[in-house]
Amino acid sequence: MALKTGKGAEAPPFLVMDVIAAANARAASLPPGAPGVLRMEVGQPGTGAPRGAAEAAIRALQAGQPMGYTEAFGLRPLRERIAAHYREKYGVVIAPDRVAVTVGASGAFPLAFLAAFDAGDRVAMAAPFYPPYANILTALGMVPQILPCDASTRFQPTVAMLEALDPRPEGLIVASPCNPAGTMLSRQELDAIASWCEANGVRLISDEIYHGLSYGAEECTAAGCSDSAIVVNSFSKYFSMTGWRIGWMVLPEDLLRPVECLAQNMFISAPHVAQVAAEASFGCIEELEANKAVYARNRATLLRGLPEAGFDRLAEADGAFYIWADISRLTNDSVGFAARMLAEAGIAATPGVDFDPARGGRFLRFSYCGPEAAMAEAVPRLKRWLSV
Amino acid sequence: MALKTGKGAEAPPFLVMDVIAAANARAASLPPGAPGVLRMEVGQPGTGAPRGAAEAAIRALQAGQPMGYTEAFGLRPLRERIAAHYREKYGVVIAPDRVAVTVGASGAFPLAFLAAFDAGDRVAMAAPFYPPYANILTALGMVPQILPCDASTRFQPTVAMLEALDPRPEGLIVASPCNPAGTMLSRQELDAIASWCEANGVRLISDEIYHGLSYGAEECTAAGCSDSAIVVNSFSKYFSMTGWRIGWMVLPEDLLRPVECLAQNMFISAPHVAQVAAEASFGCIEELEANKAVYARNRATLLRGLPEAGFDRLAEADGAFYIWADISRLTNDSVGFAARMLAEAGIAATPGVDFDPARGGRFLRFSYCGPEAAMAEAVPRLKRWLSV
Repeated sequence: MALKTGKGAEAPPFLVMDVIAAANARAASLPPGAPGVLRMEVGQPGTGAPRGAAEAAIRALQAGQPMGYTEAFGLRPLRERIAAHYREKYGVVIAPDRVAVTVGASGAFPLAFLAAFDAGDRVAMAAPFYPPYANILTALGMVPQILPCDASTRFQPTVAMLEALDPRPEGLIVASPCNPAGTMLSRQELDAIASWCEANGVRLISDEIYHGLSYGAEECTAAGCSDSAIVVNSFSKYFSMTGWRIGWMVLPEDLLRPVECLAQNMFISAPHVAQVAAEASFGCIEELEANKAVYARNRATLLRGLPEAGFDRLAEADGAFYIWADISRLTNDSVGFAARMLAEAGIAATPGVDFDPARGGRFLRFSYCGPEAAMAEAVPRLKRWLSV
Repeated sequence: MALKTGKGAEAPPFLVMDVIAAANARAASLPPGAPGVLRMEVGQPGTGAPRGAAEAAIRALQAGQPMGYTEAFGLRPLRERIAAHYREKYGVVIAPDRVAVTVGASGAFPLAFLAAFDAGDRVAMAAPFYPPYANILTALGMVPQILPCDASTRFQPTVAMLEALDPRPEGLIVASPCNPAGTMLSRQELDAIASWCEANGVRLISDEIYHGLSYGAEECTAAGCSDSAIVVNSFSKYFSMTGWRIGWMVLPEDLLRPVECLAQNMFISAPHVAQVAAEASFGCIEELEANKAVYARNRATLLRGLPEAGFDRLAEADGAFYIWADISRLTNDSVGFAARMLAEAGIAATPGVDFDPARGGRFLRFSYCGPEAAMAEAVPRLKRWLSV
């Protein structure tokens, strides 16, 4: 007898994973000595954890620490260190009890969504957006409510857009800097959105995973302007610890015990050794700032070079390590365009359809967290390819 | 304006975490020199990862491996090693493509449930059961269907119980050895249940997390008797790697791509360094068997001593590291009983209510994965306490 599958079985892939696989396959197929594939599709630093973080993990393992489960919300010293980070970086006082260490930001979203929303609830977000927001919500029976955004609002939502929503959503996700557009909300804009959410009974979820990676614009945390917002952050980006699977939330008081119970059941705890390394990563700012300086130079290279190559409609690249390129003058099929660019120019980038199902055929995301030499080489390659 | 919380916010705690906290508090409150708290509440080995596994992690970190995201289903060599484990241990051939590495067994359950079931679907399980089964299902809007079991079926479900279910459930969870009862299904029983599930369109989920820890009875995998079953396993118990958060599933073909998509969105990947250590743990059998020999001696100590102390109605302790004691001659309030036992005898154990809301007031779970000296001391302490 055939077995049923759940609606969750219809979850779309996180397409960038397939793009990475295609780039891997292309790289493996190249003859020796051929110019390599330039990787501008990946959303992770190639640098690995900072040395001091890895060394803290090594020391703990060499000392024979058993690395058992921790409390569901993580090791106390790490929670305290994260709380101190809010004081140092933002001047915002957060009780360590409000910090929940999670299995990456990915592990935070299901906990946040299940604690705050029910099946059928609407959660608004700007498009383009990080695909798992919508895919996780959908898998949980919740309903993403898409706010189509463009360069006129720096691809960010506005209070006017929220006011126009009928019916009102139960939740709103914002991200600043955002993936894929790289744009940021100003302090005034984030404040206004947070106030609107509080006034309208809408739970704000602020994805701050790219904090630490901005190039001039001020970074503001929603924890500083709302006591009811859920803040999601991670050690994956600025702290360069993707595969360690370690992130955190700052939770509002009313969700502390609910999220703790959910976390006890669904995760038990975040990886112990990653918690040890994460705490040490706060002491590695010099190395992390050097990584960031590479991104800043890559960003400058591309912001100068991409327009010369024909990509002349770029979102304001305030932060993260992405450039969101409107390629509508070149194609309305970004998937085919990206495939040809990989095959013919040896450059992998992510087609926009994953981030904006409606309009992503006219956008491409370039990631610039790769090596400087690769970014420098990308510009002349693209010039040659597009001038053919 | 007050914000709503979701039904997920009503998830009960995984109570053993609270029991652990109480035992910690009791231990911290003792004066210097006082006899310590004997920890029989914890469900994790105190031993930590085997040395060869920790050393593999250390080597990889010392070599500067960046430890980025892996593919959603894990590193290929680990998936192949797990597939080989099925051939070596059970004589069952599993394609490595069917192995999905997960963030512990905990991380496997939401993926399995979301891929196989919808909100409102019923998933049957024996009581007593591992509490997160029911708590995760409930958080996802699914409905646990409890099969009350007792010593007459070794606390395991039977085909007769399944036949009597009206309406039929969409899924069934079995665990052998099970937590908390420690009992196992025979090959014939597992075969019969798997066949019944296939014939009746019921998705079987077999939790095999305690495989490797049985004391005479044969361990059988559902992967050997059903192509549609989902098998969940972990490096946390036999392999003694709890806090590394690393487990796996063997998936049926029809769920491979759905679970991969869900995993890409909800986890990205399991922790990279834990995957490296897990692969090495297969080479540490001597150390792991030595751990198991301690459990076997602890088990013998308690099976002999607990009845002398007054706990004379014990489930058949076939495997895992738990003894499920019917204490109905002593109390029908296991929570109060456990609290008194902790305060007066200095012994922490887990009251049964977490595992069987209906009847758990009359049961207590003793865990015997602690040190031998503690288990040996527990018996005379319990004798003294109960004879008062």
